[in-house]
Amino acid sequence: MALIETTSAPLPVAGIRLGTAAAGIKRADRDDILVIEAAPGSTCAAVFTQNAFCAAPVRVARDHLPHEPRWLLINSGNANAGTGQRGLDDSRACCAYLAEQLGASPAQVLPFSTGVIGEYLPIDKIRAALPQAARTLAEDNWERAARAIMTTDTRPKTAWRRVEVGGHCITVTGIAKGAGMIHPNMATMLAFLATDARVPASDLQACLSDVADATFNCITVDGDTSTNDACVLLASGAVGGAELTQAHPDFPVFRQALLDVCQSLAEAIIRDGEGATKFIRIHVEGATDRTEALTVGKTVAHSPLVKTACFASDPNWGRILAAVGRAGCANLDIDRIDIWLGDTRIVAHGGRAPTYQEADGAALMAKPEIDIRIELGRGHGRATVFTCDFSYDYVRINAEYRT
Amino acid sequence: MALIETTSAPLPVAGIRLGTAAAGIKRADRDDILVIEAAPGSTCAAVFTQNAFCAAPVRVARDHLPHEPRWLLINSGNANAGTGQRGLDDSRACCAYLAEQLGASPAQVLPFSTGVIGEYLPIDKIRAALPQAARTLAEDNWERAARAIMTTDTRPKTAWRRVEVGGHCITVTGIAKGAGMIHPNMATMLAFLATDARVPASDLQACLSDVADATFNCITVDGDTSTNDACVLLASGAVGGAELTQAHPDFPVFRQALLDVCQSLAEAIIRDGEGATKFIRIHVEGATDRTEALTVGKTVAHSPLVKTACFASDPNWGRILAAVGRAGCANLDIDRIDIWLGDTRIVAHGGRAPTYQEADGAALMAKPEIDIRIELGRGHGRATVFTCDFSYDYVRINAEYRT
Repeated sequence: MALIETTSAPLPVAGIRLGTAAAGIKRADRDDILVIEAAPGSTCAAVFTQNAFCAAPVRVARDHLPHEPRWLLINSGNANAGTGQRGLDDSRACCAYLAEQLGASPAQVLPFSTGVIGEYLPIDKIRAALPQAARTLAEDNWERAARAIMTTDTRPKTAWRRVEVGGHCITVTGIAKGAGMIHPNMATMLAFLATDARVPASDLQACLSDVADATFNCITVDGDTSTNDACVLLASGAVGGAELTQAHPDFPVFRQALLDVCQSLAEAIIRDGEGATKFIRIHVEGATDRTEALTVGKTVAHSPLVKTACFASDPNWGRILAAVGRAGCANLDIDRIDIWLGDTRIVAHGGRAPTYQEADGAALMAKPEIDIRIELGRGHGRATVFTCDFSYDYVRINAEYRT
Repeated sequence: MALIETTSAPLPVAGIRLGTAAAGIKRADRDDILVIEAAPGSTCAAVFTQNAFCAAPVRVARDHLPHEPRWLLINSGNANAGTGQRGLDDSRACCAYLAEQLGASPAQVLPFSTGVIGEYLPIDKIRAALPQAARTLAEDNWERAARAIMTTDTRPKTAWRRVEVGGHCITVTGIAKGAGMIHPNMATMLAFLATDARVPASDLQACLSDVADATFNCITVDGDTSTNDACVLLASGAVGGAELTQAHPDFPVFRQALLDVCQSLAEAIIRDGEGATKFIRIHVEGATDRTEALTVGKTVAHSPLVKTACFASDPNWGRILAAVGRAGCANLDIDRIDIWLGDTRIVAHGGRAPTYQEADGAALMAKPEIDIRIELGRGHGRATVFTCDFSYDYVRINAEYRT
């Protein structure tokens, strides 16, 4: 049941191989192509962006998902979004190139892209890089894979867990990328997860949807849902044994391992948020339901005034209260609202808490991690939203992104 | 019908007097108290913030509105928000002090506050300043009044129109303040308007609600709806003549003059938006209805990525499309979306327009005023949202606000 082993490098997953290559899509001196290969008989689940303006590779990957995919082809440096019919054709061409290279069917390849929006994919460069990616396929390549998918990320994001399920020791390992345009809706920017457990596709999909909702969908850097968000989970079944269905008594152990890996990656994205200097958890309690709690949490998380106050280590609780007040809760009674910074109550009954000292608040806001707890006093709904502050560097990074 | 006269100083309004004083609420060297007095028989209309966490003076002003108010008492430097029962008591006390000074009833005074949230109002300082404000009451005091209500504003905001209505020459003059926490919902931060037309209170209220919806409610600096928003229109009736009801054939002339004044003040707020270097109009057309057009316009206007691209003069149309895509329009067909920068089409059918040259887009984005037109191709709903860019100075101003 418990975590059996930890290591300092990502744990490989039996039956899952990763290969990288440098295609020179945006820069010449780094890997920007990643191929992930799952052993025959693997199952696959995926969740995608809910942005109506979804990128070409997202549309192609959705189409290919029912065809028992065994390969993921990811490029960084170009999002292949806003590219119309040509973008779809380019994305399908890349799938065909990889299928040809590996003797597979194009529909077994899921494509993913991340980078600049509105430029055509350099498919000849990608095609030329695929033999190198195929040659380097190996099970112990997760760290290098995590680097290949980075854009404005400042560090690779990896996470893994090993647990005992049905008498077998199984591994869940994942990588993710994302630092800006982060407000996932059903998925994060890009996350690739794998396990050697033997899980039917339908159970895998149900579990992934559920876990993504509880982790990646609770983070936000800037409220801007990306056009390319995708999260994929491959299950190779290499450990053997009985199928791990949702009815299996150890399924919750598997789910928890997946949840831990996803939560760890989601937090890594926020800690690496563009220009971020603070990691902020916003806990909303006492809402009428979870949806209301999430809405309140996200309204606070998206407030530029709250985010700049966090940057400045200013315990400006009025801004938090003002954001709660505009979150659209019907018949909100502000006299029932309490707010805590860490263990210090700063707002009681909608006003400054009598015991609150500004110096205490300032000390808590100056820490690299800030916990804000908002009690609405309306019911039992709760949610936690993860975000970061808004700094000069956020403006600099996004003003300079294309130059 | 036409604009009869323009002047470089705000036109006084017969029957409306304004007086200011320095109470030393936040700083010692500036006026921070404004009293506006309307002649006996004047009518009054007002719209207030929809933020559930509304400030004490908003609650008191709402209560007093039915009592034929003749005085407005405004302070800057302290918002009297998040101050609980004591805040309500303080606000009522200030009304009583002014009423005592002027021999009126406290319910005839509407209070307004703007400034820091969460600190108690220094009512003794305000009381001590009221005789000075009363002594300086004069009709030609609009410019000085506009200065007295400023907080992070860098310049006073005034607007006026003179039109002929029912054979009389009438004046509409107004002032406003606001630079941050600007996303008015039914009203702007603070706007005070007056006319010498003779308009029954119910017609005045209907007209103001309608006009505020078309002007102040279409601007946003940072998406943060304030706790203290209020917009008040006084009508002294000093020009005499028949009552100007909504049925009067010249009522549209009056409404248009009010609309022009409000639009002018709303634009002045955006031009003075915290850290703003660009003035941005987002025109949304072809929506299913006006509500959808407003939602799309505001989603684009609130996108930190679009706002930082405007700051950088980067024609990053992918960010605009991505914001449109997450605005929540049901069944949005991205292939029908066109986007123009000024007269240049940059997006056609959801992708880069074939005729578009990046250099043209960059030249248009480098101008101090940017017009973005988004055609959704779904119907006839349209709306224009006004906003500004997101600069280093926005972060600086809001990180340093309380220090």
